[in-house]
Amino acid sequence: MNIAIIAPFKDVSDWVATFQALDPSLTVEVFPAIQKYERVDAVVLWQHPHGLLKEFPNLQLICSMGSGVDHIMADPELPEGIPITRIVDPRLTFSMTNYVIMGILNFHRQLFRYLEYKKNKTWDMSNPEIDITVGVMGAGQLGSDVLNKLKALGISAKAYGNSPKENYPHPYYYGSQLDEFLQQVNVVVCLLPLTPNTVGFLNRKLFEKFRQGTYLINVARGKHLIEKDLIDAISAGYVSGALLDVFQEEPLPAGHPFWEHPAIMITPHIACITMYQAAVPQILANLKNLLNKDPLQNQIDRSQGY
Amino acid sequence: MNIAIIAPFKDVSDWVATFQALDPSLTVEVFPAIQKYERVDAVVLWQHPHGLLKEFPNLQLICSMGSGVDHIMADPELPEGIPITRIVDPRLTFSMTNYVIMGILNFHRQLFRYLEYKKNKTWDMSNPEIDITVGVMGAGQLGSDVLNKLKALGISAKAYGNSPKENYPHPYYYGSQLDEFLQQVNVVVCLLPLTPNTVGFLNRKLFEKFRQGTYLINVARGKHLIEKDLIDAISAGYVSGALLDVFQEEPLPAGHPFWEHPAIMITPHIACITMYQAAVPQILANLKNLLNKDPLQNQIDRSQGY
Repeated sequence: MNIAIIAPFKDVSDWVATFQALDPSLTVEVFPAIQKYERVDAVVLWQHPHGLLKEFPNLQLICSMGSGVDHIMADPELPEGIPITRIVDPRLTFSMTNYVIMGILNFHRQLFRYLEYKKNKTWDMSNPEIDITVGVMGAGQLGSDVLNKLKALGISAKAYGNSPKENYPHPYYYGSQLDEFLQQVNVVVCLLPLTPNTVGFLNRKLFEKFRQGTYLINVARGKHLIEKDLIDAISAGYVSGALLDVFQEEPLPAGHPFWEHPAIMITPHIACITMYQAAVPQILANLKNLLNKDPLQNQIDRSQGY
Repeated sequence: MNIAIIAPFKDVSDWVATFQALDPSLTVEVFPAIQKYERVDAVVLWQHPHGLLKEFPNLQLICSMGSGVDHIMADPELPEGIPITRIVDPRLTFSMTNYVIMGILNFHRQLFRYLEYKKNKTWDMSNPEIDITVGVMGAGQLGSDVLNKLKALGISAKAYGNSPKENYPHPYYYGSQLDEFLQQVNVVVCLLPLTPNTVGFLNRKLFEKFRQGTYLINVARGKHLIEKDLIDAISAGYVSGALLDVFQEEPLPAGHPFWEHPAIMITPHIACITMYQAAVPQILANLKNLLNKDPLQNQIDRSQGY
């Protein structure tokens, strides 16, 4: 088979080497150095140029290099009818959950206040922790892992999702139950997929429904958050503090107000890294499934966008 | 019955009110305003004046106000033969474990490096996490809770204790297996009891056995740590960073080098607070056990010191 990796902003040499090591019969080309577009059976994508995919007349499979597919769905000229898969990596889930729980515990145990105390040489033993109930928005694989692990820690947590779920092992709210959900939590974790319905979901209207002083963690996508609205919500007291790993524009521009905002902690999109060691075997397995006409693993539902 | 609370550095008004609310028949006196020492059946202690207890001729029970009893055992004139109890509070364990796991995850996910990046407006996605294996020193109730919860998070962890244990549910090392234990871990959590054997346990000789760049979390007692040795071990590279909640002298003196040390994060002895709401019912239950000659809860073994 022939695959093309199209990831113009990434160094993909480790990916190419791993594909070739694991399947020497595979032909791997890297955009823009693709010799014959009609020979390519599958594309492996990260932030590909929109409109490019229609140049591949014999394309049978579109693979995301990461767990998200919003970068693929955002292409207005995405060819119809070709299956799209994403990476589901236990190690990736491990990293994401650890990051989220780190953030939750730092708010629970008030780490950022103690950092200030250290700076000011203040010894103040009062209010050593705040009671928290965590609200996880997005009850897919990543959200569920966070909820399971919070349960193991004895930390109260509730989930919010798009559609009804039966027998979900955690308190679950969906759709119009958003207000009820938000009234019960004071740490909100955004793990929603990015779809046309969730772009800008973290906005002024949502923050005004938060309990006073709620903490926000966004590890999903920068486009979920209206960034100016967060700054206003902190000023208004709806939000006490935020931990953000993703931004509207990445790298975060030098003049961006988040860099110097005392209540906003930022990390450079590192909560969850897709590692080629895990991703390449999954893509190879799906190429084999395609060849054998077996069901694909981790194929996304185009109508849902995830 | 009659009890005396002896805690000269604490405001104990909430304790007195709770004792009286839960058992109106109890007489509660607070040192130094004790009218008749011979009437007192039990003392409730936090950092009592050494030598004072021999003034109570009819003393039947010594209760620590916290989970530690080192402040009691340190009294050279501690009366023989009187049972000593401590507080075991699930809420206290919850707080301690959350603090410890917060510290572990902050080292794992390199939070302190990202705080520097924010200050310097640096966007650097490389090395988003380090592989960790946690070594918990002290495999009692608190240490075991940390180990159980790390296991639930999928984080590799090993325990070190004083004496052999059968069927311990985690990899366990004791006594002379210390070197072997330390060679396998790169985050060391001290949850040892403070006894004559463990005073100064965290010292230069121990740090020199650490794997290069190990992280240290001390939430046990300040006297476990030779503070100057930690600073030297950081300079020498044995230790990458430390999170300390307890100190040789508390409050930490204004001129202490820890305040300004970039690799040492400090909190003001807040990892675990004994809450009177949990402690008072436990002390009352033991007074009743004493009266009924039933076994006491959470009585310590004087020969072990914990």
